[in-house]
Amino acid sequence: MSQKLERILPKALQQGECFKQALTHRSASGKHNERLEFLGDSVLGFVITSALYKQLPSASEGYLSRLRASLVNEATLAEIAVEISLGDYLNLGAGELKSGGFRRKSILSDTLEAVIASVYLELGMPKAQDFVLDLFKKRLKNLPDEDELKDPKSRLQELLQSRGHAIPQYDLLSISGDAHRQLFTAECVIKVLKVRTQGISTSRRKAEQKAALFAFRKVRENVK
Amino acid sequence: MSQKLERILPKALQQGECFKQALTHRSASGKHNERLEFLGDSVLGFVITSALYKQLPSASEGYLSRLRASLVNEATLAEIAVEISLGDYLNLGAGELKSGGFRRKSILSDTLEAVIASVYLELGMPKAQDFVLDLFKKRLKNLPDEDELKDPKSRLQELLQSRGHAIPQYDLLSISGDAHRQLFTAECVIKVLKVRTQGISTSRRKAEQKAALFAFRKVRENVK
Repeated sequence: MSQKLERILPKALQQGECFKQALTHRSASGKHNERLEFLGDSVLGFVITSALYKQLPSASEGYLSRLRASLVNEATLAEIAVEISLGDYLNLGAGELKSGGFRRKSILSDTLEAVIASVYLELGMPKAQDFVLDLFKKRLKNLPDEDELKDPKSRLQELLQSRGHAIPQYDLLSISGDAHRQLFTAECVIKVLKVRTQGISTSRRKAEQKAALFAFRKVRENVK
Repeated sequence: MSQKLERILPKALQQGECFKQALTHRSASGKHNERLEFLGDSVLGFVITSALYKQLPSASEGYLSRLRASLVNEATLAEIAVEISLGDYLNLGAGELKSGGFRRKSILSDTLEAVIASVYLELGMPKAQDFVLDLFKKRLKNLPDEDELKDPKSRLQELLQSRGHAIPQYDLLSISGDAHRQLFTAECVIKVLKVRTQGISTSRRKAEQKAALFAFRKVRENVK
């Protein structure tokens, strides 16, 4: 058991069947963690929502909602799973082991949710709350502000408007790749500032957001 | 207070500020129920998920997920709100009152979530669980089986295949209405059975699902 996981996980749980099942991917056994993951997702959602609600008594519903989305998502859960070395304890089938399933974000994230469910089932909601809040402690102390949570296109537009400039122009430059795996290249142009950036991604929207992010950084740097 | 709401709502809550805020729509006051609704949604999600998990120990994650979607959605929440006469107690602004906001599904559903949050905040999770399970008692006793939860197109296809027929054909017959309010008419054709049904809805997908539902009923009736 990893030092870190051992430290934060209630001792009573570490030898139990439920915890063992929480660590078991469907590739390894019929007694896998998918049902636990489904339950854990709702426990996690409730604990984080309640914590944000109480921590920020005057935040709007929209800000709370964006904060939660920034905390409860596959990437963040996988990061936390890595922090507690959860990957070392996964029970994976041979195929997943070979292909590095213990490093896959979706597997790490799902397993963490299943572990949260096992704490809830074995020890009740108050202990599950303690466990989740411990996992998220650092992140709940350093919440992004409202501006940081906005998407790059909105942030860029607001930055330009605050300086009296016109809104940027977006152009789709190219679409490449097979039909089921297309790559879009979009350009963001701010003529008056002579800024021109490109973003490449799997959808036009994402490519524009990337281009906007690069443009945002350029505009901000130019002034400093 | 409605007989029914009074009966199921913990007495300790009915005079409190938090409950009053839960009933207040944003059209009526700055102290409205949007934050409570955000919190209540997560309490509700957890309580129903946990109840389904425990009630159906051998159900797959997929079935549990479809069951939850069939219980926790705007239409069902609005139905429950009507059952407990929640609309009589809403605090709406003049505009919403005039336009019949107390009957609007989204307002009823959101308010019910806010009321659930107020029970959780004032009396704790165990009481909130009792409250939600009481609201959903009838529905949790009569859960739809896996087949009923499938979408009509899937069900129709399975029915036809079980009888050795080919899959049905879908055609888009027309699109009418303004650009922002289009209506799609789709047809479902099962040539070999001489079945031809139509569905009209706000998207092509929905129109096809409607046509499939009518066809499903016809095919089943024809055999009985």
